[in-house]
Amino acid sequence: MERLYLYDTTLRDGQQTQGVQFSTDEKRQIAQALDTLGVDYIEGGWPGANPTDSAFFDAAPATRATMTAFGMTARNGISAANDDVLAAVTNAGTPAVCLVGKTHDFHVTRALGITLEENTANITRSVAHLVSLGREALFDAEHFFDGYRANPDYAMQAIRAAHEAGARWIVLCDTNGGTLPAEVGRIVGEVIAAGIPGDRLGIHTHDDTENAVACTLAAIDAGARQVQGTLNGLGERCGNANLTALIPILSLKEPYASRFETGVTRKALAGLTRTARMLDEILNRVPQKQAGFVGSAAFAHKAGLHASAILKDPSTYEHIDPATVGNARIIPMSNQAGQSNLRRRLAEAGLKVAKGDPALAAILDEVKAREAEGYSYDTAQASFELLARSVLGRMPELFEVKRYRVTVERRKNKYDQMISLSEAVVVVKVDGEKRLSVSESMDETGGDRGPVNALSKALAKDLGQYSALLEDMRLVDFKVRITQGGTEAVTRVIIDSEDGQGVRWSTVGVSANIVDASFEALLDAIRWKLIRDRGET
Amino acid sequence: MERLYLYDTTLRDGQQTQGVQFSTDEKRQIAQALDTLGVDYIEGGWPGANPTDSAFFDAAPATRATMTAFGMTARNGISAANDDVLAAVTNAGTPAVCLVGKTHDFHVTRALGITLEENTANITRSVAHLVSLGREALFDAEHFFDGYRANPDYAMQAIRAAHEAGARWIVLCDTNGGTLPAEVGRIVGEVIAAGIPGDRLGIHTHDDTENAVACTLAAIDAGARQVQGTLNGLGERCGNANLTALIPILSLKEPYASRFETGVTRKALAGLTRTARMLDEILNRVPQKQAGFVGSAAFAHKAGLHASAILKDPSTYEHIDPATVGNARIIPMSNQAGQSNLRRRLAEAGLKVAKGDPALAAILDEVKAREAEGYSYDTAQASFELLARSVLGRMPELFEVKRYRVTVERRKNKYDQMISLSEAVVVVKVDGEKRLSVSESMDETGGDRGPVNALSKALAKDLGQYSALLEDMRLVDFKVRITQGGTEAVTRVIIDSEDGQGVRWSTVGVSANIVDASFEALLDAIRWKLIRDRGET
Repeated sequence: MERLYLYDTTLRDGQQTQGVQFSTDEKRQIAQALDTLGVDYIEGGWPGANPTDSAFFDAAPATRATMTAFGMTARNGISAANDDVLAAVTNAGTPAVCLVGKTHDFHVTRALGITLEENTANITRSVAHLVSLGREALFDAEHFFDGYRANPDYAMQAIRAAHEAGARWIVLCDTNGGTLPAEVGRIVGEVIAAGIPGDRLGIHTHDDTENAVACTLAAIDAGARQVQGTLNGLGERCGNANLTALIPILSLKEPYASRFETGVTRKALAGLTRTARMLDEILNRVPQKQAGFVGSAAFAHKAGLHASAILKDPSTYEHIDPATVGNARIIPMSNQAGQSNLRRRLAEAGLKVAKGDPALAAILDEVKAREAEGYSYDTAQASFELLARSVLGRMPELFEVKRYRVTVERRKNKYDQMISLSEAVVVVKVDGEKRLSVSESMDETGGDRGPVNALSKALAKDLGQYSALLEDMRLVDFKVRITQGGTEAVTRVIIDSEDGQGVRWSTVGVSANIVDASFEALLDAIRWKLIRDRGET
Repeated sequence: MERLYLYDTTLRDGQQTQGVQFSTDEKRQIAQALDTLGVDYIEGGWPGANPTDSAFFDAAPATRATMTAFGMTARNGISAANDDVLAAVTNAGTPAVCLVGKTHDFHVTRALGITLEENTANITRSVAHLVSLGREALFDAEHFFDGYRANPDYAMQAIRAAHEAGARWIVLCDTNGGTLPAEVGRIVGEVIAAGIPGDRLGIHTHDDTENAVACTLAAIDAGARQVQGTLNGLGERCGNANLTALIPILSLKEPYASRFETGVTRKALAGLTRTARMLDEILNRVPQKQAGFVGSAAFAHKAGLHASAILKDPSTYEHIDPATVGNARIIPMSNQAGQSNLRRRLAEAGLKVAKGDPALAAILDEVKAREAEGYSYDTAQASFELLARSVLGRMPELFEVKRYRVTVERRKNKYDQMISLSEAVVVVKVDGEKRLSVSESMDETGGDRGPVNALSKALAKDLGQYSALLEDMRLVDFKVRITQGGTEAVTRVIIDSEDGQGVRWSTVGVSANIVDASFEALLDAIRWKLIRDRGET
């Protein structure tokens, strides 16, 4: 088995996605997920280019994967040792450093305004500098394919400089994303024939023609042995080559599966769908239903002919077993397969329902009706459980919310500063007794945390026998999305809660009113915890 | 120039997309758009399979493209003339008919439960029947690539039967979407070598490995001359080959552009982005920002190095001119952008600032500081303009919000139903005069639209001379995410607004309090419109 190396650039090129701006903490979470997945390199960002990237490298998580800092070759006329931009990159102290440089003559003269010889010399001394510091050096050959088409001699001279200076990997980049797969394959083959071994070559493509995955495969077919990409195909413009598709292709599909090995185990592969969805959660993006392998529709069989054949034998209309990538088959709810799926999900929640029980169809109907109103139970497992309990008649009576009122006010204080404050009143009936609670949204520093915070505190404040159980509960995330509910736009709120043991659960609320939707999700979160803590079955 | 034929199946296979259900009228609209685009065949659906498809064919629009009905080969043991399922298809009266049939031995014996010989005979007599009716006959060879891998002799025998019976096109289908481009190319080449000419072969691929476009190109490279696909890559599971990517590739990219011609003119190509967005409007889907060619991010240059080079020469980071497909370049504001990018963006907003003006650095500093607090100006161009105006001292004094208060109440009404209602009071100072306005969140149907709606109405209600300018303004989208603002989690709200002329603009607000953040984005939206309508510079 030959080794293929996976190089992830979600945290660097993925950050170039329009609308994406990771926080340092999010970068850390993603790096850990990538490490669990089993990539070989994690490109963490460009130290010195912005505060987030610098902060990430200041306290980079310990990973099995080789942490890599990205930067550019030393600027013309400045020695590598004296270039402060390059110094910021090497000072991040990562075992590997990847520097981007020009290999297309047009860009050297037009964008940089220097001579071809000067550019080559800059590549040589920058890579040599990394090697002298004992780092693994990677060279990102920007615009390599366009450059090779325009001036193959210069493009080769540029990457040969990096190779001879000791770069472990020369990464051939199709920066503008316009090269088609057949040409990528031909050019990679010519580079190898010209003397740079395939096991020193990486491939970095973009999806501008929707061929990024195919271009990557063409480069591997031609001999390249490092694959660059991002989770969910994030990246500049149309995105980078999608590792979420490439990883299962290389692991499961021929001729790759029996020829190559990567650092991704079968077990890690089975976590791929969850990893892809986690990234979307962090970005608060709606996961692409039609994404290959990990999309919620990737194994959804809508055509009647397909669905009935699938029941006889799944291989009739599936190219792989969805479980190998942690995904699941979806068959129209109405039929037998839909019900056995449901029984499994209920069993996971400790709710045993016999095969053929009419309650199964009733739950499916209720889920369908709710989904038409804008609810989504893909991630909100806790709300799904409550819904099922209610249909099954296994929903204990805990407390009843009679009414609430929340006020948000913004005005000047006595120091003539604009301040805002929220105040919530919640009236509940618990153990036959009516209780009124009021809370405001102030945090420890006197800052206003808004109406949902005030409501949450007022609701938990006086629930009689239950209040003690809610002490270790906190709201850890709050996602809001506008979606369709019937014919109208409604707000869907998903709340993630956590308890003292680190257990997390998600609940959903839907309403045209954002506060109402939040309150519904909050109520579900509290109910789920009370039921679990009381050990209901 | 060799002719390539485009066969669109948006109305048939595209309808298998999870969550997609076209009405007859929507089918008509889409057919007309496809005809304007210049495809050669429009597969309108399966007459007899459902009421919508039947109704579409009953009054199919007149098109230059060949209208095609889809169905399946005659069932075993029933003559083609007596098969009522087939009769419903031919009775639609279309000039062309495409019938799907089995070519994979496993499916013949396992899914159909008939002998291989029976299946071959069914293909022969079904195609011959179409020919006898004077129709152009197409044969969709289902699972052809899987079938060819498993039993090449039988797969060839099946398609040879269709060819010999007079099928104009034999369409090689990768029904399960699992075949990779290199293998598609190899197999198509072998089929042609075995005697079926390439100008009788079509290719139909699915995107399960994100290689549908590449598989199609590989088949064309090998000699196939009909290309099947859908707009925006709609279709069963992960979708079909995306014509919205394939059309510009075949029209603009080598080796295709100078070797082949299609029915798509340059003028029609320039309408591609609009056609793609129109389909999303019909489906009420958010257009995919990162889609190749037509996505709103396809020519968005976020990286600072890219953005500055683009300003010198767009070809540095663009593989085609966005205008050729009716798309546009975007240089978003972000903490990675430089001053030249900034000047350009200001100029687009009608704000001329001289090169080297210290205000440029001041604006960038302000943007950076805001981004650290959680703001994002990638899409919120209108808020960016207001921020720049304020730094430049060109922000007119329009009105001042002195304070506001909004109350959300949920309680039982006199009919014992839980209802919610929001009420907002806004106090503004406009033209030296203090004005108090109050509004509630009720829509025309008596439903509660929430606190942001109430605030929005109260704010616009009495702004003196400005109120009239706000009458045609409406909120079209509202996005909320939790993000990092300094060390705390804050809420970022992005509001998209639209006026009576269809102009859209985006604004952003950030606060720990979701109502406050929304109010800030609302204020910006109103201010931007007033400034634009007054023609401020």
